[in-house]
Amino acid sequence: MLVKNAWYVAAWADELGAAPLGRRICDEAVVLFRDAAGRASALADYCCHRSAPLSAGKVVETGLECGYHGMVYGGDGACVSIPGQVHIPPKARVRNYPLVEKDALLWIWMGHASQADPAQIVDYPFHNDTANWPHKHTMYEIAGSANLMVDNLMDLTHLAYVHTTTIGGNAKAHVEAIMQTTPTETGLKFTRWMLETAPPPTYRKGAPQLADKIDRWQEFEFIAPGAVLQYTGATDAGTGAYDRGIRDGGFQLRIFHGLTPATETTCYYFWSGANGYRQNEPQATLDLYNELEVAFKEDVRIVGLQQARLSEVGEDVLINIVADGARVHMRRVIEKLLAKENAAPVLV
Amino acid sequence: MLVKNAWYVAAWADELGAAPLGRRICDEAVVLFRDAAGRASALADYCCHRSAPLSAGKVVETGLECGYHGMVYGGDGACVSIPGQVHIPPKARVRNYPLVEKDALLWIWMGHASQADPAQIVDYPFHNDTANWPHKHTMYEIAGSANLMVDNLMDLTHLAYVHTTTIGGNAKAHVEAIMQTTPTETGLKFTRWMLETAPPPTYRKGAPQLADKIDRWQEFEFIAPGAVLQYTGATDAGTGAYDRGIRDGGFQLRIFHGLTPATETTCYYFWSGANGYRQNEPQATLDLYNELEVAFKEDVRIVGLQQARLSEVGEDVLINIVADGARVHMRRVIEKLLAKENAAPVLV
Amino acid sequence: MLVKNAWYVAAWADELGAAPLGRRICDEAVVLFRDAAGRASALADYCCHRSAPLSAGKVVETGLECGYHGMVYGGDGACVSIPGQVHIPPKARVRNYPLVEKDALLWIWMGHASQADPAQIVDYPFHNDTANWPHKHTMYEIAGSANLMVDNLMDLTHLAYVHTTTIGGNAKAHVEAIMQTTPTETGLKFTRWMLETAPPPTYRKGAPQLADKIDRWQEFEFIAPGAVLQYTGATDAGTGAYDRGIRDGGFQLRIFHGLTPATETTCYYFWSGANGYRQNEPQATLDLYNELEVAFKEDVRIVGLQQARLSEVGEDVLINIVADGARVHMRRVIEKLLAKENAAPVLV
Repeated sequence: MLVKNAWYVAAWADELGAAPLGRRICDEAVVLFRDAAGRASALADYCCHRSAPLSAGKVVETGLECGYHGMVYGGDGACVSIPGQVHIPPKARVRNYPLVEKDALLWIWMGHASQADPAQIVDYPFHNDTANWPHKHTMYEIAGSANLMVDNLMDLTHLAYVHTTTIGGNAKAHVEAIMQTTPTETGLKFTRWMLETAPPPTYRKGAPQLADKIDRWQEFEFIAPGAVLQYTGATDAGTGAYDRGIRDGGFQLRIFHGLTPATETTCYYFWSGANGYRQNEPQATLDLYNELEVAFKEDVRIVGLQQARLSEVGEDVLINIVADGARVHMRRVIEKLLAKENAAPVLV
Repeated sequence: MLVKNAWYVAAWADELGAAPLGRRICDEAVVLFRDAAGRASALADYCCHRSAPLSAGKVVETGLECGYHGMVYGGDGACVSIPGQVHIPPKARVRNYPLVEKDALLWIWMGHASQADPAQIVDYPFHNDTANWPHKHTMYEIAGSANLMVDNLMDLTHLAYVHTTTIGGNAKAHVEAIMQTTPTETGLKFTRWMLETAPPPTYRKGAPQLADKIDRWQEFEFIAPGAVLQYTGATDAGTGAYDRGIRDGGFQLRIFHGLTPATETTCYYFWSGANGYRQNEPQATLDLYNELEVAFKEDVRIVGLQQARLSEVGEDVLINIVADGARVHMRRVIEKLLAKENAAPVLV
Repeated sequence: MLVKNAWYVAAWADELGAAPLGRRICDEAVVLFRDAAGRASALADYCCHRSAPLSAGKVVETGLECGYHGMVYGGDGACVSIPGQVHIPPKARVRNYPLVEKDALLWIWMGHASQADPAQIVDYPFHNDTANWPHKHTMYEIAGSANLMVDNLMDLTHLAYVHTTTIGGNAKAHVEAIMQTTPTETGLKFTRWMLETAPPPTYRKGAPQLADKIDRWQEFEFIAPGAVLQYTGATDAGTGAYDRGIRDGGFQLRIFHGLTPATETTCYYFWSGANGYRQNEPQATLDLYNELEVAFKEDVRIVGLQQARLSEVGEDVLINIVADGARVHMRRVIEKLLAKENAAPVLV
């Protein structure tokens, strides 16, 4: 079961240029396109004439033209022209999905359009604040469910096993991190502090001035069903980051994680990494991205392996451990959304 | 549902040499082979001993020998020898399919053998008339149903969208073509005239002497369930092709299209292109073939995309448009054949 | 249906080094690993925390560590440590499969552990007797069932059709071989004699001194469900191999064949070839292996083709022939094992 009454990232805004873009979202084929004025829309990705994918067509002056027999659709899904035919029957239309461009992202709503409230879209102004948070972003197709990728972010003890060469660090330090979890209206927040610990390789490269012992924080906010906002960093140990809120002068970064279900067992992973320590150096932003990419591809690998096995054995044979606190809470939030949605089914 | 009581093209005659040839036709595994005398036969493609595919065997003096333990089958499907055994039990046989070699093609009948009448096989003498219609042929495996490929040929408005760089031409001219459709006993015929139109690139290359405005005709005959015969050409505009039947001196070609279901959603596409304008120039025949190949691979691409989406959304969400007249008629002919066949099921 | 109450080869002992090894056996995901002391164990290949495959983990001092969040398992399947947690709940365990290292092989029992008797494991001391039977071994993954591979070995008339260029020889000689089949408690034995026959290419290469006519023997023992032990060779015709038991001085080899179901329609093929004629020449052992490899890959090919077709047409349309005696007996032995196992189902 996938939550449909929700805003998901459909694409990075800059992924969508002059050509239409096909995506599978919540197991539905969707086409994104920008009309002649640059306004982005999302439609069901098939022509209502002979079902050719509209993503194989092209954008023309009046809308999105099917590449087979030339029918053209407006951004609302209504057919606006049929070659050789004056009358356009009312049934000549395909489903339109609410789509909003915000903070460098295209957000799509897969459920009942009447319930789509753009005010509920995650705020991430850092994508626009290139002076303080210059970033670089990408998208991966993952052979695992969106939930498994969110799981991954909710239990950071994996850093010591999966990311030993990048953002990991000492296993004991991770396990003994000071962890505080707070429910929110839309999900949960948690903060982890690892005090007087050695900087992992990525931190060392980003901020060579760091001392051999650092105080390291990780603030995560999960906004159901698919967004995780990360603010993390470190300063020299004992200089006040933990007890006095002094976080300047060390290493700090922000990561946006957007997980969008493609199917029940596959997803898109949209992420950006923002450099909050050497903002005037594009190379530093690029270096950070490259470091994160190595780590995140390690996640992609383990989650793909996990999904394959999980599809076989099922969740019922598994057990929870102490480290699963945030993860279990996160899953409950999603279960509640599903229960609410199923009580009042989406009619489209 | 696939029509089985019908003659389908199983292969080009020259595809079948000394080695047996395996094909999947109407979702059955079939092996074609020529015996020592060159006579072609079609059998179920498995040995009745241990089910090794006979297409992995070889032709010997007495028939088709299984490549595993050496059983040999005659063209009628009866086993003629079992190594180490004198008695051949009557059950030692595999199904034989009626097969006829005609007009450079091998035609197979997948339904009840007693209903197979070779007189019903499509006539296409042009394949033998190399003086007037020198041709070149090929076969593609298509990731779409045979019906979708016939659809493609029944609605030529797609030329302006799919084949812009080859046989397409101006969209408006296609849409405004004079179209006349005539039912036949075995399917339908239609003729399209595009008067005073610019020659598309393929015509221009084939007949450089054509004027800037031509009168262009396309005559199609669909013979259910899988053959489409095409005669098409152009002369300088206003020189009598349309109103006085004068078609000489311009550009004309014939195309044989044979669509054979491999499965419900895949097919073989057998086609030939015959040069009716510079018959003494082998290079002209080759040039025509190369032009058509570019166009037909565009069809292969769009139909594959269409099939993938159609398998997901189904026909019921689709609508017909004005340009679908011939296509809709063609589908009705096939529906009638299926209804007839299902009323008196094929017993084999 | 697969026999589970049986010892199957899980791996060659030397395949399992410091890294864990994942295999699919009887359609279950299994991980093999050696602990710090070198002792091999087999577990279900998923972590009971979040189902990451343990085969993606690594061996540590205390056992097999999951590569995702660091849980460690002992060879008995019990979790011995959970990072960040003192108490190990009793449910923190995965299934252990009995595993025995013997004769260079790792033998696994996929059924009820209480019925696993190591005394029932096939004896093959020749793997340890490197002075008299130096050997080389390998494993193939086969796109056909284990039963089809055993079939292959039970009906050697295929040699004349599948292995014409290696170990085959004259078809008539194979068909006319003197064949004696003897049931055993655990399967069957058969001996084939081909007298006064020409040496096939592999024999000729191995023992160039052989005369142009040889007496050739093949002794096979099938031990259900997956082992076939082969002792084969030849001496110059009429020198007493057949009637007086004099087998020295010619060409002789032993082959171990271990077939282990991966799924119902795929298997692992473990085989070794031992040189019993020029034991002091490593190159002779290697040459033999290379010859056998060519032949066995011919079997892999035909069995893969056979399985694909058999999965489609089923066994019911097939017939038995005279050459099927040993094969049919072998299948009955397996049917009995299955019937016995189903009467008292495996509880795990």
